[in-house]
Amino acid sequence: MEKQKKIKPSKELPSGFEDRKEEELLIRDFIISKIKEVMIKYGFKYLETPSFEYTESIGKFLPDKDRPGEGVFSFKDETKWLSLRYDLTAPLARYVAKNFNEIPKPFKRYQLGTVWRNEKPGPGRFREFLQFDADYVGTRNLQADAELCIMVSEILENCGLTKKDYIVKISSRKITDELFNNLKIQSYEKKSIILRALDKIDRLGWIEVKKLLGEGRKDKSGDYTKGAGLNECQIKVIENSLNVNSSDNEDLKEIMKIFQDYKFDNFKFDPSVIRGLEYYTGPIFEVNLNFNVKNLKGQIIQFGSIGGGGRYDNLVGNFGNLDYPATGISVGIDRLVYALKQKKEFNIKIVRPVMICVFEQKNMNKYIEVLKKLRSENISSEIYPGEGKIKKQMEYANKIGSPCVIFYGDEEIKNSQIKIKNLKNGIEANIKIESLVDEIKKNI
Amino acid sequence: MEKQKKIKPSKELPSGFEDRKEEELLIRDFIISKIKEVMIKYGFKYLETPSFEYTESIGKFLPDKDRPGEGVFSFKDETKWLSLRYDLTAPLARYVAKNFNEIPKPFKRYQLGTVWRNEKPGPGRFREFLQFDADYVGTRNLQADAELCIMVSEILENCGLTKKDYIVKISSRKITDELFNNLKIQSYEKKSIILRALDKIDRLGWIEVKKLLGEGRKDKSGDYTKGAGLNECQIKVIENSLNVNSSDNEDLKEIMKIFQDYKFDNFKFDPSVIRGLEYYTGPIFEVNLNFNVKNLKGQIIQFGSIGGGGRYDNLVGNFGNLDYPATGISVGIDRLVYALKQKKEFNIKIVRPVMICVFEQKNMNKYIEVLKKLRSENISSEIYPGEGKIKKQMEYANKIGSPCVIFYGDEEIKNSQIKIKNLKNGIEANIKIESLVDEIKKNI
Repeated sequence: MEKQKKIKPSKELPSGFEDRKEEELLIRDFIISKIKEVMIKYGFKYLETPSFEYTESIGKFLPDKDRPGEGVFSFKDETKWLSLRYDLTAPLARYVAKNFNEIPKPFKRYQLGTVWRNEKPGPGRFREFLQFDADYVGTRNLQADAELCIMVSEILENCGLTKKDYIVKISSRKITDELFNNLKIQSYEKKSIILRALDKIDRLGWIEVKKLLGEGRKDKSGDYTKGAGLNECQIKVIENSLNVNSSDNEDLKEIMKIFQDYKFDNFKFDPSVIRGLEYYTGPIFEVNLNFNVKNLKGQIIQFGSIGGGGRYDNLVGNFGNLDYPATGISVGIDRLVYALKQKKEFNIKIVRPVMICVFEQKNMNKYIEVLKKLRSENISSEIYPGEGKIKKQMEYANKIGSPCVIFYGDEEIKNSQIKIKNLKNGIEANIKIESLVDEIKKNI
Repeated sequence: MEKQKKIKPSKELPSGFEDRKEEELLIRDFIISKIKEVMIKYGFKYLETPSFEYTESIGKFLPDKDRPGEGVFSFKDETKWLSLRYDLTAPLARYVAKNFNEIPKPFKRYQLGTVWRNEKPGPGRFREFLQFDADYVGTRNLQADAELCIMVSEILENCGLTKKDYIVKISSRKITDELFNNLKIQSYEKKSIILRALDKIDRLGWIEVKKLLGEGRKDKSGDYTKGAGLNECQIKVIENSLNVNSSDNEDLKEIMKIFQDYKFDNFKFDPSVIRGLEYYTGPIFEVNLNFNVKNLKGQIIQFGSIGGGGRYDNLVGNFGNLDYPATGISVGIDRLVYALKQKKEFNIKIVRPVMICVFEQKNMNKYIEVLKKLRSENISSEIYPGEGKIKKQMEYANKIGSPCVIFYGDEEIKNSQIKIKNLKNGIEANIKIESLVDEIKKNI
């Protein structure tokens, strides 16, 4: 084969993307298995839509031809634009519109999948996330909204959290709509600025948020954020709205009645819950963790929500003249993994293989015999897979975290014995070949 | 909120992308669980690399600025190009180069992940695939190559296949290299045409492949494929090479000796196995299914391989002056799901929920009581989630495939009874509330 000119390629990853290692993946698998169990129990159908959709089908981020990467990852394909999905809700609406005649009504589905956001690269800004979504499509029944909150609680508790570790906050988009009516604010842009400010109450406190509602705010780093430009009177109206009573809202009253019937009490009404202006139309909810989570520098951080959702009664209707109300919840799996990994009581077992040392190639059939015996008992095991001598083999076994190694040299073979070395305590033992499996089980 | 001008978006998916429904996803989950079990047993580390890599890191498909979508999905990001991975091997090489000092040597890892190919849209051409890969990096030991073949067999058998259902074909890239030496062919392009032709022996037979090696071939549809332009004498050399003996190749001889020690015999030497020119350097293998698989039109098709791999000793070296030999295997999970779904003996259980009918809102607390009892016994169940009357509720229950519905009206509540209707046989029964769980278990 011709030698082609070699350019040394980059070993690095683009910013916002990460390699994920075993511990993280095993915690993720554990969470996913718990999600699936609960989803079956609650009668949700399992669905998967592809990574790509026509850009026009998933909405608002129509790419500009000059900047096709704005907000989403988009490609020109023949004549149309394709985008990687930025959430699982927009593809669901497309799926429901496409399969409207075939699906049960209402339609309950869950999905686990990667979503992508083409964020401006920067520290801590990820561009790929694993998300879990569960939705009810085609019902105004508030039983659905209530059950989503109960369901996500059951998932978290099955993952090992206690009631103390999390809280479901509920509110309603109607409360903010009424607030904007009172304030006589109609501009979408101004509403966005106000909601983004309110969304920061948990993190910054009311005093700082007031600045964001007014002229603006300078943060610790000295960066200045222009405010919404409201006057004091308007800000007072907002402050009062934060003390609104949940029973003023009919939807929330009904949801809380259902919670009571379920004996579910791990929620609180919190009118500062916002969850974006995009498509919510009624009750909204958010799940917050209460235990300490540290950032990569080891500092305890305001971790924020691991998921949330709400009612979006107009989304499916965008695909035609369908009146098709819906409600759903999303959980950010990567964030949940990150938090769970730090929970003291949480432990995931990582199995590492027992290693059989290779002394002489001619005895390979003997090593294979031992290996087959261990594997037939479902014991994670391997023959040293490299080409080094015993010293290198032991380095390798230590490096991979092998619980113990097996020496089966000429001497041992002759005596129908096997030597086991436990790598945690360094103890070596000669055992009879018949008791191999039992002895290994004591060492793993 | 302002009403924005509404454009009705497309309900369709871009070609090459598909929605996947429950049965397919459950089969996939089953296969994945079997893969993970075997991977733990064989001592492979679980790893995940992100969807995107720098285009330069994953190689050959450097996008042309005018046609950034050629072969892979690529984006210009700040100053560099990013691409969605088209396989899991190139990202592994990048991972190994990046983490060279930290990883065990050799390094055994497995990965499950989506890969994307920006194929020209057309029927049956998918652009998104789920793949499973297992690799040994940093060893020339042929024990590794042999074990990959044995491992994939164990996975298939754990998924329910028997020895008769599949075969592992082995060959070596060195055999084709020698063939090209004999033929004095050096052009990369000509080699590719010849190998593509040989790759079709299974499907077309030798007579037709001869045409592809010579002037060219007209297929049934009348389409003409230009051939490699070899003369008769050269074609005869190729024909002879197909009858080469595996024991002429030292690597294969050693691998077959290891197979014997493992008592693994479900393989055959087949010099027509090609697996692309790209990066293989030694032994190559391919896994073929032997049972009948039908296409979407119901016709039995030549299904071809569900996976394969081989030794690629130069890939990691591209990232620097590392001498880092490797060998690996890939399985196309979507293809395996497609085949397994059609296997008569294969059955996956789809659980559908028991549905509790809603007669009166005021009794919701009673329905919830029943629901909680069922769910506490892990019985998939739901209260009718819509807003319709009984007729609609029964239509819904039938549509979702509910095994049975529960009637718990005023009358039943008064008498501490519950009525169950089995939707498979239509039988209704009044039962005592205490025996609810037992009775439901008989009906699901």
